[in-house]
Amino acid sequence: MSTSNVRVAMIGAGTVGQPLARLLLDSNRVDMLVDAAAARIELVAICVRDGAKSRPGVPAQLIVTDSMATATRDDIDVLIEVAGGVEGTRELIEAALSRGTTVVTANKALMAAAGSELIALAHQHGADLYYEGAVAGGIPILRALRTSLAGERINRVMGIVNGTTNFILSKMSAEASDYGAVLAEAQALGYAESDPTADVEGFDAAAKVTILSSLAFGTALCGEVIHREGISRISAGDVAYAHRHSLVIKLLGIAERIGEHGISRRVHPVMLPMDHPLASVHGAFNAVFVEGASSGPLMWLGQGAGGEPTAAAVLGDVVAAARNRVTRRCDAPLSIDPSLQIFPLGELQSVFYLTVDVLDRPGVLATVAGVFGEHSVSIKSMEQSGFGDEARLTFLTHMVFESDISATLEDLAQLDVVDSVGSCIRVLEDDPS
Amino acid sequence: MSTSNVRVAMIGAGTVGQPLARLLLDSNRVDMLVDAAAARIELVAICVRDGAKSRPGVPAQLIVTDSMATATRDDIDVLIEVAGGVEGTRELIEAALSRGTTVVTANKALMAAAGSELIALAHQHGADLYYEGAVAGGIPILRALRTSLAGERINRVMGIVNGTTNFILSKMSAEASDYGAVLAEAQALGYAESDPTADVEGFDAAAKVTILSSLAFGTALCGEVIHREGISRISAGDVAYAHRHSLVIKLLGIAERIGEHGISRRVHPVMLPMDHPLASVHGAFNAVFVEGASSGPLMWLGQGAGGEPTAAAVLGDVVAAARNRVTRRCDAPLSIDPSLQIFPLGELQSVFYLTVDVLDRPGVLATVAGVFGEHSVSIKSMEQSGFGDEARLTFLTHMVFESDISATLEDLAQLDVVDSVGSCIRVLEDDPS
Repeated sequence: MSTSNVRVAMIGAGTVGQPLARLLLDSNRVDMLVDAAAARIELVAICVRDGAKSRPGVPAQLIVTDSMATATRDDIDVLIEVAGGVEGTRELIEAALSRGTTVVTANKALMAAAGSELIALAHQHGADLYYEGAVAGGIPILRALRTSLAGERINRVMGIVNGTTNFILSKMSAEASDYGAVLAEAQALGYAESDPTADVEGFDAAAKVTILSSLAFGTALCGEVIHREGISRISAGDVAYAHRHSLVIKLLGIAERIGEHGISRRVHPVMLPMDHPLASVHGAFNAVFVEGASSGPLMWLGQGAGGEPTAAAVLGDVVAAARNRVTRRCDAPLSIDPSLQIFPLGELQSVFYLTVDVLDRPGVLATVAGVFGEHSVSIKSMEQSGFGDEARLTFLTHMVFESDISATLEDLAQLDVVDSVGSCIRVLEDDPS
Repeated sequence: MSTSNVRVAMIGAGTVGQPLARLLLDSNRVDMLVDAAAARIELVAICVRDGAKSRPGVPAQLIVTDSMATATRDDIDVLIEVAGGVEGTRELIEAALSRGTTVVTANKALMAAAGSELIALAHQHGADLYYEGAVAGGIPILRALRTSLAGERINRVMGIVNGTTNFILSKMSAEASDYGAVLAEAQALGYAESDPTADVEGFDAAAKVTILSSLAFGTALCGEVIHREGISRISAGDVAYAHRHSLVIKLLGIAERIGEHGISRRVHPVMLPMDHPLASVHGAFNAVFVEGASSGPLMWLGQGAGGEPTAAAVLGDVVAAARNRVTRRCDAPLSIDPSLQIFPLGELQSVFYLTVDVLDRPGVLATVAGVFGEHSVSIKSMEQSGFGDEARLTFLTHMVFESDISATLEDLAQLDVVDSVGSCIRVLEDDPS
């Protein structure tokens, strides 16, 4: 049997694009790729903004600069988009899909904002749309959810899906340092952007949770805003408390089923028991923890960012795309479950850790405890640290409603004896094994 | 479009078969399965040895007892084999595949012994052969290696693929207990068989490593014997030493590429740094750690045994099998790389931990050290514990050849001053991140 050719064009030759081009052009990989894809994958063009820039290992004769002309070439089977961005990029992907060209992208922001429409467009034109590189870098979690776990009833997905925040939290934990100092260090090392908002405030994780949820539960990818809390208010004191109680603070993206039709998706810090598999995911590693009704707990771990690992994930998609092209089939579109409803945040229950800075006067604890009592927030333990103007009360609650905690925090902030309400971090208590 | 039916028969209704039957018959899952498989999966028969036995949730009208008649039914698309065993079972699977019936099995012993022939037979008759449940229970690692990582150059696969031994080692580590006591406890709890040989001597892990290697590197599945050391000689002293040096002892199945064409596959205990992702895999959990040239380190973790998790893995295969049946295609057979050669064990290098019980006399250390020197085994550290007849020397070597360690151990055993050579455990020194 003669080997078919599958012609591929790339848009973008940056952090992911350059290593990906090298993988596709690597003469030592040719045979392996032919074997994997049942086709010869031929890279015919790499579209960049600045054609004059030097890119090691990327042949100059493949470089082009007209992105729309590249996306709509008649002679390509697969368009790889690793340029990023939403607006202009969306048009390119739509143009390619509308011509029946399969698209492989690593664009989490675009998929979270408009994935459902793009998937429908791909299906309508007999093309595939793959985006493994959009979530958790090199970890092949999306295909696992689509294939191996397609028949499994998934109850919850929890992920450490942002390497920057996990690097910062791991370092705060290992060195008992403050957030500000570690952020500055992460910025100096290139692990955090000069404007770190997208990472530290959980926007990046929120896009990834949206994508994981769509695969695990059938929620739509249409730019819905999900609840999001970042790590910038976490203090060295919070980390020390966690450590003393055999807990570890992680920023988790969570998507879970509640009852038959409820779905909750959110990003916030969580104190995890030290023996939870996610607790030992350190530094820039990412991990996705999936709880299936039959499979039980499963976890995927790997490098969550970086050009090479993400390029490896994109390459897996290119291989799958090529296989389908050769056999002239395409995957069924991701189904959306219209019966699902957003479960109100206030009705979720959790154990909470919280700190309140108070004036150290007689009767303060009684006053503060009274506010907890009014909102049915039952206290499991309390610690006082510091004296005088520096007094701090640290509480661990029993399982309580989010809405009751919010009301408690609001009322506490109004008290004369309360200097400020500090941290409020959820504590995961269930046993994964 | 009307939904096709895919007719399925099962052989075996034991630990895996019963929960699998319940999953396939679960009315709450029907829609999800139809969506996942693009077909209605219809369970038409369950073949058992003893038709009279009661099986909760398994309808009596599906029960049959003639396994060959079940395997060769004209009206089934997929045969699921969850009965286990090699000889009789192989004939059933061959009979089904020869008729073009796709087979899903969880039979690691059979796949390790004769997988290549069965895969070729499946391909010859236009059928698929899936066996996700054969390795690491509920963890969908095999499909990931076949699909997402098909274009990746994998350098090494290391797995904690036996739950019994991981349970025993975790407990020895947590409680500083001796092997014998923990084995007895594991047997009482049902985590270890009354004859634990297959688990504790690494036979079970060896079959799984053979299968992982075939997917990662293209080695054949033809019953080749691989190097195997179990955990029965590990002492509480070894565990304590590991703990003091921030190491953890795990039984690992390892398949790795050495140079361009060398392959090493083996099962033996390893002392891992405590911050290695595999080090925090406790109890009956399994995990597979994959090192890809571009992806970097990846790890899959989940429940390595148990009926429900394995049934979930088998269900994933049934869904994939049904999808292919409906579209009248089958997967490309696993390719075998004929250029691969077994790398000789003696030429591997490692750091070794070893203990030697000696008579506490002047000059003993010099005599023992002389033997190390003769075989070019360089010592990194030495500790002496005990006195008189109870004296023990514990060594940690630098990176040395396996053949030199073997020769050293042989010569040490011949020395008059050596009472006995105790443990010899490899120490993993490389940094996964």
